[in-house]
Amino acid sequence: MSRDICVCLDFLTDAHKAQIRAVAEKGGFTVHFFTMAQMDEAAKVGANAEILYSCTPKLLKQCKKLKWYCCSFAGVDLYCKDPTLFPGPDCQLTNSNVYGLTISEHTVMVTLMLLRRMPEYKVWMDDHKWQGVLPIRSIKDCHLTMLGTGQIGRCIAHSFRALGAAKITGVSRSGRPVEGFDEVYPVAKLDQLLPEVEILVMALPGTDETQKILSAERVALLNEQALVINVGRGTAIDQEALVAALNAGKIAGAALDVVDPEPLPPDHPLWTAKNLVLTPHVAGNMTLPYTCDRNVDQFCEDLENYMAGRPLAHTVDRSRGY
Amino acid sequence: MSRDICVCLDFLTDAHKAQIRAVAEKGGFTVHFFTMAQMDEAAKVGANAEILYSCTPKLLKQCKKLKWYCCSFAGVDLYCKDPTLFPGPDCQLTNSNVYGLTISEHTVMVTLMLLRRMPEYKVWMDDHKWQGVLPIRSIKDCHLTMLGTGQIGRCIAHSFRALGAAKITGVSRSGRPVEGFDEVYPVAKLDQLLPEVEILVMALPGTDETQKILSAERVALLNEQALVINVGRGTAIDQEALVAALNAGKIAGAALDVVDPEPLPPDHPLWTAKNLVLTPHVAGNMTLPYTCDRNVDQFCEDLENYMAGRPLAHTVDRSRGY
Repeated sequence: MSRDICVCLDFLTDAHKAQIRAVAEKGGFTVHFFTMAQMDEAAKVGANAEILYSCTPKLLKQCKKLKWYCCSFAGVDLYCKDPTLFPGPDCQLTNSNVYGLTISEHTVMVTLMLLRRMPEYKVWMDDHKWQGVLPIRSIKDCHLTMLGTGQIGRCIAHSFRALGAAKITGVSRSGRPVEGFDEVYPVAKLDQLLPEVEILVMALPGTDETQKILSAERVALLNEQALVINVGRGTAIDQEALVAALNAGKIAGAALDVVDPEPLPPDHPLWTAKNLVLTPHVAGNMTLPYTCDRNVDQFCEDLENYMAGRPLAHTVDRSRGY
Repeated sequence: MSRDICVCLDFLTDAHKAQIRAVAEKGGFTVHFFTMAQMDEAAKVGANAEILYSCTPKLLKQCKKLKWYCCSFAGVDLYCKDPTLFPGPDCQLTNSNVYGLTISEHTVMVTLMLLRRMPEYKVWMDDHKWQGVLPIRSIKDCHLTMLGTGQIGRCIAHSFRALGAAKITGVSRSGRPVEGFDEVYPVAKLDQLLPEVEILVMALPGTDETQKILSAERVALLNEQALVINVGRGTAIDQEALVAALNAGKIAGAALDVVDPEPLPPDHPLWTAKNLVLTPHVAGNMTLPYTCDRNVDQFCEDLENYMAGRPLAHTVDRSRGY
């Protein structure tokens, strides 16, 4: 009986396919490639496949003999919440921790846009008016508070350090030390940290624990110089409280790449909130060739592990959600 | 007879004033501080002053006994073109090479905005529409071509290197090697470099030689992936040719912090050019506390030099223009 790998992804180049095939053949696997537009055909192969490398729960649900699902995304909240997507509890789930670079470049961009008053200049420039200069701040010598110290948070910390940030504080569930951070606190300490926050970057997975972690009460703890940047999940913020704080000038600005719901309805108050940089969930994605290359590298690395009977390197703890 | 230093600047804090006074007193100087709104009073003191630290040719012209004018700006094109501003050819002119950090953060910001397609997303977002994702590029592994290798160009090169740029090419009048650049070519080689340009950053002083250095002929040499970023002087670019190239998609994008004339008239074609990030001459300025601190540091450093009879460290070659 043949051992099949079903791959259903849009971003693969011929070089990526050759790279995957070369590894798979060493273990006697046959690889079948599909684009997302060919999902029905993919499902036919997937029905007997041992491994699926894709990004859609719909296809996963049709793979009844699957032993390993490699999700090409980093956020796997959907999969952790719904065990019926998998043929059984033994089917392994891995995710792709490869979005750090693109998300850190996004974060540097929007942080500088906020520090350098771009939302205010935009109002003037949209009006074709040139009205003078505003006081600005710098990433050099800044204090970054990073909520989430996973691969994405670590890459963001690295970029800020490279640009001369003076202090980088991490906040994570455990509060365990992480390389690249000057200090890491557990989430339980968050309320004590918020009044001193200068730049708060949120890169958290979507779990029950991160749901509205930046609650209305916590938004109220921020000072008027504070900037809030979210690149994780829109559900992590009480958006109503954030909009009110922005419009009242109780915080200096925010940049949201993720919102709840997505896409944002045309009449949502976030569209017109003051000092807000809004982007349509584009910080991550497969839009950067570097991200695609690392995605394939990680799948191949774990395929080697799988074939050798070793534990997979990027296994998700489904009870934890990441 | 008292020896007077006239300081007419808006950005000074009490700490800056104390710092200047402490140095001046060692040499028996009396320092007189004015804001720009007090220029008439400043001119009365300036008439007998030996040293002027300011940023306005109008005040300079009234200082008939001046031996040293320290300009708080980096760009001194105005002063080099008009010798009648000075009481005589022996009056020294220094400028302030302290804008590198703020301009490099601006440059990183607008480069990322262009690489990450923000002008296109802006069109969608202004429409409250969420239309999917576009292919992007990264500063990591990029090739930067830096036109101008002075303090500003070197700071920009440093920031790009810190973010993982693969190759940094400098272009300067002499083509002499500069630390932080992988290679430096003389301007004479520019035509050969332009077809391969990925990111062209221009940080040049306003001189006869830099006037329309990016001419229509040179804009035509750029490829359709090229980005043009100007943080020096608006006169360095043939704007008509640039607008045409942008609107025809012959280059991928541009970011102009400086234009000609400034402010830009309300009906100027630059306002509506495609894939253009326009900012109102805010890359430099005294808007960042760090810039102000270094500005005062440099004046004090040269004041020590002046009092000790040593050459001033930031002397401008007026015939060269920088």
